[in-house]
Amino acid sequence: MGRAAIIVIGDEILTGKIRDANGPYLVDKLREVGMPLGRILTVSDDIDEIAWAVNSCRGRFRPLFTSGGIGPTHDDMTVAGVARALGRSVVRHPEIEAGIRAHFGDRLKPEALRLANVPEGAELVRSPQSWYPVAVVEEIYLLPGVPELFRMHVDGIVERYRGAPFHLRCVYLRVGEPEVAAVLDVIAREHPAVALGSYPRFDDPEHRVKLTLEAQVEQPVEEALAALLRMLPPESVLRVE
Amino acid sequence: MGRAAIIVIGDEILTGKIRDANGPYLVDKLREVGMPLGRILTVSDDIDEIAWAVNSCRGRFRPLFTSGGIGPTHDDMTVAGVARALGRSVVRHPEIEAGIRAHFGDRLKPEALRLANVPEGAELVRSPQSWYPVAVVEEIYLLPGVPELFRMHVDGIVERYRGAPFHLRCVYLRVGEPEVAAVLDVIAREHPAVALGSYPRFDDPEHRVKLTLEAQVEQPVEEALAALLRMLPPESVLRVE
Repeated sequence: MGRAAIIVIGDEILTGKIRDANGPYLVDKLREVGMPLGRILTVSDDIDEIAWAVNSCRGRFRPLFTSGGIGPTHDDMTVAGVARALGRSVVRHPEIEAGIRAHFGDRLKPEALRLANVPEGAELVRSPQSWYPVAVVEEIYLLPGVPELFRMHVDGIVERYRGAPFHLRCVYLRVGEPEVAAVLDVIAREHPAVALGSYPRFDDPEHRVKLTLEAQVEQPVEEALAALLRMLPPESVLRVE
Repeated sequence: MGRAAIIVIGDEILTGKIRDANGPYLVDKLREVGMPLGRILTVSDDIDEIAWAVNSCRGRFRPLFTSGGIGPTHDDMTVAGVARALGRSVVRHPEIEAGIRAHFGDRLKPEALRLANVPEGAELVRSPQSWYPVAVVEEIYLLPGVPELFRMHVDGIVERYRGAPFHLRCVYLRVGEPEVAAVLDVIAREHPAVALGSYPRFDDPEHRVKLTLEAQVEQPVEEALAALLRMLPPESVLRVE
């Protein structure tokens, strides 16, 4: 099973004008369908930066989702950036062009036709809620940055990647990380199929560390949990979920 | 003036267990002090991924801030990842070790001393609020992931990078992006010192596009704004801020 990557594009995020909502939304959606996520890269509205981000992920992560930089203005660089990364040219897609002409009718400005630009060879993914499709090329989905439009499209797209659900167990500890680090070393080494996380808290009177054990198969998680609970001093464990 | 980059490290963010708060916090802080930000990379608890992130940014962005992966457990990989990126070894810092021994006293576990590991040659940055310092090497600041600790340290560190404030003007439009794309092309081309952004809205009855003009010097922004307002059809402009 591969891992996905998200590339968020937009100066408005790097300058703090807008807090990115699409990355976190897609993180949750991928989790929900059981598709692991490998990276999130947030880059500026710059062709080279976008091309760098795509090239640094493809080959290693698949599918890729880009968010933002789709539109008719000078700062919409995603199509050009993805095309550059893939060594493809930018072409006008006749189906999108027909859709734009139908959508704008008499009010059509020539610049609106830039919305029909795609990397050569791109296919279209349509949402029943929108006349404007998403282009996909080499499993790179070019999603719009406006959150309403992003969600309209991405909900259907992630369904293509539905995998086994994640099994997660959590152990809450009364003691700090140094107390259990040696035990965690052993569990992590002896249960490599299970992702073992350790998260300290310094502001919670209830627990000081939360441990997480996770995989997309249940049995190894339960085995690692049992081994962990055998090794931890019983008085250090507050509760298991 | 350089641009900063942020590297957020943690499986818990990529799996949706925790929503990253440190990246957005630092985005706002850098904005506040007038330090431009070039990239945000979010990667997993993996030495190679961390080393890749550092190497892909250094040389191009400076300073770098890492968030997370600092601690005594098996999933704390940041020191090793940064060291690998820089071709440095991991060494025990005697000052941090002394601090750890003083902090834990009789309760010291040997694993706590892992908190004294730093990339060779690292210097320490101290916050008056914490006994535990932040390591910095080649202007890469290794910040803790726990938000309270992150903020405790980063507020002081960003002050080292205080630059000229950003001047931002906004123009709200009644018309959509295709209507103004040709004008924006001209303004962007003729005012390269000004960052010109165009942000459509589809859910707001009040305006359809927000334009932003921004730079760290005031005059070019005002000149670009004046040129823009001369070129836009007056009835398309709802208001200027």
